[in-house]
Amino acid sequence: MECVPNFSEGRNLKKIKKIFQAALRQAQGEPARVFGLEYNKDHNRMLFTIVGAPSDVLASVFAAIKTATQLIDMNKHHGEHPRIGATDVVPFVPVAGVSLDDCVLLADKLARKVAKELKVPVYLYEAAAKKPENKSLADIRKGEYEGLKIKLRKPDYGPDKLHPTAGAIVIGARKYLIAFNVNLNTADVSVAKKIAAKVREKGGGLSGVKALGFKVGGLAQVSMNLTDFEKTNFDAAFAAVAREAEKFGVEIKGSEIYGMIPLEALVKAVKNSFKAMTFKSDQVLEKRIYENQRSKD
Amino acid sequence: MECVPNFSEGRNLKKIKKIFQAALRQAQGEPARVFGLEYNKDHNRMLFTIVGAPSDVLASVFAAIKTATQLIDMNKHHGEHPRIGATDVVPFVPVAGVSLDDCVLLADKLARKVAKELKVPVYLYEAAAKKPENKSLADIRKGEYEGLKIKLRKPDYGPDKLHPTAGAIVIGARKYLIAFNVNLNTADVSVAKKIAAKVREKGGGLSGVKALGFKVGGLAQVSMNLTDFEKTNFDAAFAAVAREAEKFGVEIKGSEIYGMIPLEALVKAVKNSFKAMTFKSDQVLEKRIYENQRSKD
Repeated sequence: MECVPNFSEGRNLKKIKKIFQAALRQAQGEPARVFGLEYNKDHNRMLFTIVGAPSDVLASVFAAIKTATQLIDMNKHHGEHPRIGATDVVPFVPVAGVSLDDCVLLADKLARKVAKELKVPVYLYEAAAKKPENKSLADIRKGEYEGLKIKLRKPDYGPDKLHPTAGAIVIGARKYLIAFNVNLNTADVSVAKKIAAKVREKGGGLSGVKALGFKVGGLAQVSMNLTDFEKTNFDAAFAAVAREAEKFGVEIKGSEIYGMIPLEALVKAVKNSFKAMTFKSDQVLEKRIYENQRSKD
Repeated sequence: MECVPNFSEGRNLKKIKKIFQAALRQAQGEPARVFGLEYNKDHNRMLFTIVGAPSDVLASVFAAIKTATQLIDMNKHHGEHPRIGATDVVPFVPVAGVSLDDCVLLADKLARKVAKELKVPVYLYEAAAKKPENKSLADIRKGEYEGLKIKLRKPDYGPDKLHPTAGAIVIGARKYLIAFNVNLNTADVSVAKKIAAKVREKGGGLSGVKALGFKVGGLAQVSMNLTDFEKTNFDAAFAAVAREAEKFGVEIKGSEIYGMIPLEALVKAVKNSFKAMTFKSDQVLEKRIYENQRSKD
């Protein structure tokens, strides 16, 4: 089980450390691992990753949420990224044999604990959503903290008013998300926007693909979120962008896998690209070493 | 550090288990991992993998060699695969930050221990070779056990005569070897043989590539050993075979990664195939989990 909590603090290093260390301290001596701290000043936001058995992940992320609730005052928070609370969003993600249903159960358990012990209103999103209108994170965050202060959206758990300083929290469960960008050999951002509109699921494109066109470092970029790599992996997304780009007479300059990616996605891309249909992740040396280590522990 | 000892027993399950378990027992409570036991009746041969810190790997493989020396009688051994001893060949392979030089040192240490304690003559091969004529395993094994019985090649360590039942041992150090086969959409094995002759290093082809043409399951197959994937990885080998096959009007039906492959090779293939030049193995979730686990242990 993996959990990637996002907090509304990306500037004050002391606070960032305290929140991260709360998760780390809780995980000490437990089999949960806490790593990958990232923070951004413009977004004024931080995130890290917790991996382990469900109960250990829950204890670790709760410790961080509690600390963030005490340290962050949303009334003084400014940043480019949309947010509604000190702990803004907490997705649980299935990895290594855990199912999405297990993640839904854990999200619900954490939501009840947060509402009861920290008195923060909680919304459940994506696979954990209790109402169809709460499936999309963007819908829940509409209006942001300032908007909810004026008119609160009915929470799934917790008080019917915002926490005075920590606001509200979105908790949920979703499949592993791969952030994949393809850079085009043109400065014309309109090409990237047109390609994005073609390849994204909403435009009748690839299953599970969200896509936008940006200009990055002077070049047009098709920036994608692959929300279900078992349906559309990065190799298929790359091929689709290349196909559309060709229509504009534009070449692909390079691609970028942003952040973490599960081994299964690499294995799947290699299988497809080299017609290596019998290839399995069990053949990857590091995986075998790791699994043997676990079975001995 | 990785070690893949090969023993001349692939039929008697009791003996196979005893040899494997000797390595396993020695590794109990140590950080060395023993896994991936494979054996083949036609070859009358077994192998498995040991991974861990150098001293632990050495202790584990020595326990297995000692057991094989006691159990296997080469005078009664028949099999298709070339061999000169009960423990036939023991390569040390660098993985996870270990250098090839470290592997050479460990091979030498094991060779001296085997010669002294088990009274078996030892040849050092590949990167660990003390003489240029012993670099190639095929050269050392020429004539096999039966040939050495008549005229012994001068060993690097140990007695100047074969062990009465266990024969001799080849120990050495080499880079990670990837076994990669490409199946062609033709039954004409001569096409595979011609392509193999073109792509192999000896024919002026790809660096570190050994290649042969076979007929497997009714189809022609180019069977390759990639002895240095940092120079020629499987994606480059695939592309070269495809290019040559096109000249014969033949298509690639599929490819096969045989046995274990290091994560770095997958990452390298993905970087090349999708122009993802910034992609690193540290972005693979399972690697991060594994490394965090080690740093906490």
